[in-house]
Amino acid sequence: MKDDNISQLSAKQICKMLDGVLVGPETIAVKGIATLADATTFDISFLGNDKYRKQVLTSKSAIVLVPHNFVTPPPENRAWIKCDNPSEAFIEITQKFNSYQYIPACGIHDSASIHHSVAIGNNVHIGAAVILEENVKIGCESVIEAGSYIGPNSQIGEHCRIHPNVTIRERSIIGQRVIIHSGTVIGSDGFGYINSSDGHKKIPQSGVVQIDDDVEIGANVTIDRARFDKTWIKRGAKIDNLVQIGHNVIIGENVIIVAQAGVSGSVDIGNNVIIAGQSGVVGHLKIGEGAILMAKSVWSRDAEPGVAYCGYPAVPRQTFWKQAAAVQKLPELLKRVKSLEKEIEEMKQAAD
Amino acid sequence: MKDDNISQLSAKQICKMLDGVLVGPETIAVKGIATLADATTFDISFLGNDKYRKQVLTSKSAIVLVPHNFVTPPPENRAWIKCDNPSEAFIEITQKFNSYQYIPACGIHDSASIHHSVAIGNNVHIGAAVILEENVKIGCESVIEAGSYIGPNSQIGEHCRIHPNVTIRERSIIGQRVIIHSGTVIGSDGFGYINSSDGHKKIPQSGVVQIDDDVEIGANVTIDRARFDKTWIKRGAKIDNLVQIGHNVIIGENVIIVAQAGVSGSVDIGNNVIIAGQSGVVGHLKIGEGAILMAKSVWSRDAEPGVAYCGYPAVPRQTFWKQAAAVQKLPELLKRVKSLEKEIEEMKQAAD
Amino acid sequence: MKDDNISQLSAKQICKMLDGVLVGPETIAVKGIATLADATTFDISFLGNDKYRKQVLTSKSAIVLVPHNFVTPPPENRAWIKCDNPSEAFIEITQKFNSYQYIPACGIHDSASIHHSVAIGNNVHIGAAVILEENVKIGCESVIEAGSYIGPNSQIGEHCRIHPNVTIRERSIIGQRVIIHSGTVIGSDGFGYINSSDGHKKIPQSGVVQIDDDVEIGANVTIDRARFDKTWIKRGAKIDNLVQIGHNVIIGENVIIVAQAGVSGSVDIGNNVIIAGQSGVVGHLKIGEGAILMAKSVWSRDAEPGVAYCGYPAVPRQTFWKQAAAVQKLPELLKRVKSLEKEIEEMKQAAD
Repeated sequence: MKDDNISQLSAKQICKMLDGVLVGPETIAVKGIATLADATTFDISFLGNDKYRKQVLTSKSAIVLVPHNFVTPPPENRAWIKCDNPSEAFIEITQKFNSYQYIPACGIHDSASIHHSVAIGNNVHIGAAVILEENVKIGCESVIEAGSYIGPNSQIGEHCRIHPNVTIRERSIIGQRVIIHSGTVIGSDGFGYINSSDGHKKIPQSGVVQIDDDVEIGANVTIDRARFDKTWIKRGAKIDNLVQIGHNVIIGENVIIVAQAGVSGSVDIGNNVIIAGQSGVVGHLKIGEGAILMAKSVWSRDAEPGVAYCGYPAVPRQTFWKQAAAVQKLPELLKRVKSLEKEIEEMKQAAD
Repeated sequence: MKDDNISQLSAKQICKMLDGVLVGPETIAVKGIATLADATTFDISFLGNDKYRKQVLTSKSAIVLVPHNFVTPPPENRAWIKCDNPSEAFIEITQKFNSYQYIPACGIHDSASIHHSVAIGNNVHIGAAVILEENVKIGCESVIEAGSYIGPNSQIGEHCRIHPNVTIRERSIIGQRVIIHSGTVIGSDGFGYINSSDGHKKIPQSGVVQIDDDVEIGANVTIDRARFDKTWIKRGAKIDNLVQIGHNVIIGENVIIVAQAGVSGSVDIGNNVIIAGQSGVVGHLKIGEGAILMAKSVWSRDAEPGVAYCGYPAVPRQTFWKQAAAVQKLPELLKRVKSLEKEIEEMKQAAD
Repeated sequence: MKDDNISQLSAKQICKMLDGVLVGPETIAVKGIATLADATTFDISFLGNDKYRKQVLTSKSAIVLVPHNFVTPPPENRAWIKCDNPSEAFIEITQKFNSYQYIPACGIHDSASIHHSVAIGNNVHIGAAVILEENVKIGCESVIEAGSYIGPNSQIGEHCRIHPNVTIRERSIIGQRVIIHSGTVIGSDGFGYINSSDGHKKIPQSGVVQIDDDVEIGANVTIDRARFDKTWIKRGAKIDNLVQIGHNVIIGENVIIVAQAGVSGSVDIGNNVIIAGQSGVVGHLKIGEGAILMAKSVWSRDAEPGVAYCGYPAVPRQTFWKQAAAVQKLPELLKRVKSLEKEIEEMKQAAD
C-alpha cells in the first residue's frame, strides 16, 4: 500500500532521468502531476500539443516538459526541461510518482479459496475472497485482486494485473503483462443454438479464450469462449469498457477497440485495426490490417486494409460524408424537383 | 429483513397520510400496490394519466388515488381518495409498504474483510464477503451489500446504498444518499495510450472519480477514473444500466443518462441534460444546459442549451425528422428525376 | 472436476449412439471435436451445410457425420457416419466428450455464507464465497458457482447453472434448467423518477423478475425488476451478453436477443421474436409474434407479426434496403437535378 506515500522530485533529478536540458533553477521540486490548465505550484506538466503553447507561460506548474524548439525562457520560480518527446517523457515521470498507482502488497489473503493443486509463482498478490480452482497457474509478480474468480485449468502469466471482481472461466490462457479490469468476464459460453422442433438447442462451446502478452481489457467486457479451438486476442491489443467479443473471433496485434463496440462470432480482425465506440462487426467477416471503423458504424462486409469506414452499413469515410451531406440537402432537393416538375409541365402546356 | 412482513392500511389511514378527500367507506383496507390494470381487490392504485380514466371503474383495486376533478362515484366496496397529485401521493404510499423494500439489518458480517484502518459510522450494514481496503471510510446509515469491493482511501458518505458485487476502486469519493447497483465499476482506468514504435504505451490514469449527493447509478455501469484530477458526477444525476462514462467527464446536476449510452473522455455536460438510450457523445465536447439527445444518436459537436438533437451525426430534432421523412421519399424521388430527364430529352428532340 | 479427463470414442461406438450408417473402418477413434477446417486426425467433425461439401474430403478429421445423400466414399484411415441430421447428431456427440464441459462437484463450500432459513435440494453445488440470503430456495441438481449472490426470498429451480459472480436480487423467481452467465444482474431497480421541484424523485420498484424454464442469459446482462408485478422472461428465451431489459418488459417464449441490444420498459415481445445485436426497442411497444429486428435498428412503433424490420426508425427490411440504396445514389442525384435545372434554364432562354 503505497497510496498516500507522496514522494518529491527536484528539477535536477527529473532532468537526469530524462536526459533532458534544464532551463531554470535545479532545486525546484514537484509533488505531483497535472495538465497545464490544472497544475498548482507543486506540479509538473508537459507540452504535448502545439495548440497549448500559450498555456506553458500562464500555467502555475513548477516544471514543464517542453520540446527543444520552445525558446521562451521560464518566469521566476519555474523551470522548463527540454526533451525529445515531452509526452513520452511525461509518462516516464508519471510512473515515478508511485503514490498515484495503487500496488497491492505481495501475499495471499486468508479469505482466498485456493485449491491444493494450484501453482503460484513468486511475489504474487492474491486478494481477499479470490477463488482459484483446480490446476490454476499464476505467474510470478502477478496481482489477482479481491473477489476475482479463476476457473479450473486456467493459467495467468507473469506481471499480470487482474483487478477486483473479474471472472476468468475454465481453461483460459492469459499471457504476460496482461491487465484486466473489474467486472470483466473471460470465457463465457459463445451464443449458439440449433433451432429444433422443441425450441432452441444449445450448441456446446468447447473451446477456450487465449489472451496474448501486453493486452489490456477494460471493465465489464465480455469475451466468449470458442465453439471449438479458441477466441484469440493477440499481443498488444487494447479493449475498452463494455465491449463484446463473440466466439472464435481473432483480434490482431495492437488492435484498438473502444467502449461499447461489439464483434460478432468468427470475425478475423487484422493487426492495427481501430474500432471506434459503439460500432459493430457482423459475423464471419475478414477485416484487413490497419482498417478503421468510425463510431457507431457497422461493418457488414469484409474491409480493405488501411481504409477508414463509416455508417450503417459502413462505406469508405469519404463516401459516407458525401452521403451525409447529401441527406442534409434532401428536404431542399425535394422542393427543387417539385419546382422542376412544375416548370416542365408549364413548358409542355406552353408548347401545346 | 422486513421482506415478507406485509402490512395493511385502511382508506382512513391513507387518506390522513395524504391529506386527501375520501369518497367511499373508510374501513376498506389494502395489502399491496398495483397498476389499475393489474390490481386485485387487496391493492391500492392511482390515476396518473388521463388516458387511463376509464380503467378506474373497470379496475379491481380497492382504493384508487384520483385527481380532484374525478367526479364519478366509486362502486360498492371500493373507494377513491382525491388528492392534488395522485402520482406523487402514490409514491408516498408505496414507501409505506416497507414489505416491498428489502433493507438489510445493521451489522458487520463475519466473512467481510476489513482493514484495521477502516473507519465505519453508526448503523451501517456490511454484507458477507465485502472487502474494505486500507483507510476506507463508510458514513453513518450506509449499506454496503455482499461481495462489494471498496479500494484503498475511498470514502462513502452517509445513507448510501451499495448493492451486491459493486467494485469501487482506490481514492473514489462518494457523497450522501448515493445508490449504486450491482456489477457497476467505479474508478477503472481511463482508456489512454501513446502509440510508440513498440506498440501502444499506457498513459497512467492518476486521477479519481467523485460522485456527489443523491446520485443513482444503475447495474453494470462503468465510470473511469480521470487521467489527472477527477471524473465528476454532480448532485442528483441519474444513470441507467450499462452506461459508459469516460475519464475526466463532468456530468452536470440532475442529468439523466438512459441505458447503454456512452460518454467519451473529457466531455463537459451541463445541468439537466437528458441523454437517451444507446446514444453517444464524442470526446472533448461541451453540452449546454438542458440539451437533449434522442435515442441512438451521436453528439459529434458542441450542443446548444435547451435544444433537442437526433441522428448520426445529431442535428436538431426537427431537422432530423424532415431528413428522415425525405429519405423515405427517396426511392420515389429517384423515379421522378428519371422521368424528368426523359421528358426533357423528349422536349429537346421535339425542339430539334 | 472432469476437465482434463479426455475420453476416446471409436467409430463403432459413435455409430451405435447415433443409430447411423458407418462407411469405413469401425476401429477408427477420436479424442475431440472440431470443424472440418480445423480438425486434426484425432477429431470428429460434421457436414452441417451443403456449401462445405468439398471440405469433407480435404479435412483431416478422422470421422465425419454426413447426410445420407453423401455418396463419395472416405479415403483410407477415415470414416463417414451417415445420419438423418448431422448437426443435431454432432451436438449429441459433443456432449459425450464430458472432458470439455466443466461440471463442479456436488457439495457446499466452507466459505459460502448461507442463512439458516435457506432450503437446498439434493445434489447441489454451492461454490466458494457464494451468498444465499434469508429464505432462498435452491432446487435439486442446481449449480451456484463461486462469488454469486442470491437475495432474500429468491428461488432457483432444478438443474440450473448460475455461473460465478452473478447477482440475483431479492424475490426473483427462476425456473428449471435456467443458465445464467457471470456478471449478470437480475432484479436491479427499474429506471424511474418523477421530476419534482427539488430534483428527480425515485419511483419505488416494488415488483420482481420471473425467469421461466430453459432460459439462457449471457454475461454482464441487466434485467430490471418491475415497478409493480413482474419483468417476465418466458420459457426458452435466449439472451446474449450485455443486453439490457427494462422494468415490466415481457419477453415471449423462444425469443432470441443478441448481444448489446436493449429493451425499454413495459415492452411486450411476442413469442419467437428475434432482436439482433446492438438494436433497441422504445418503451411500451407491442412486438408481434415472430417479428425480426435487424442489427443496430430501433423499433419506435409496434411491430407486425412475422415481419423483418431494419433501420432507425425501423421500417420493413425491403423498404430499408431500397432507402439505403437510394441514399448511396444521392450525391449523384444532386448532380443530375442540378443539370436538369440548367437544361430547363437553357430551354427557357432559347424559348424567349
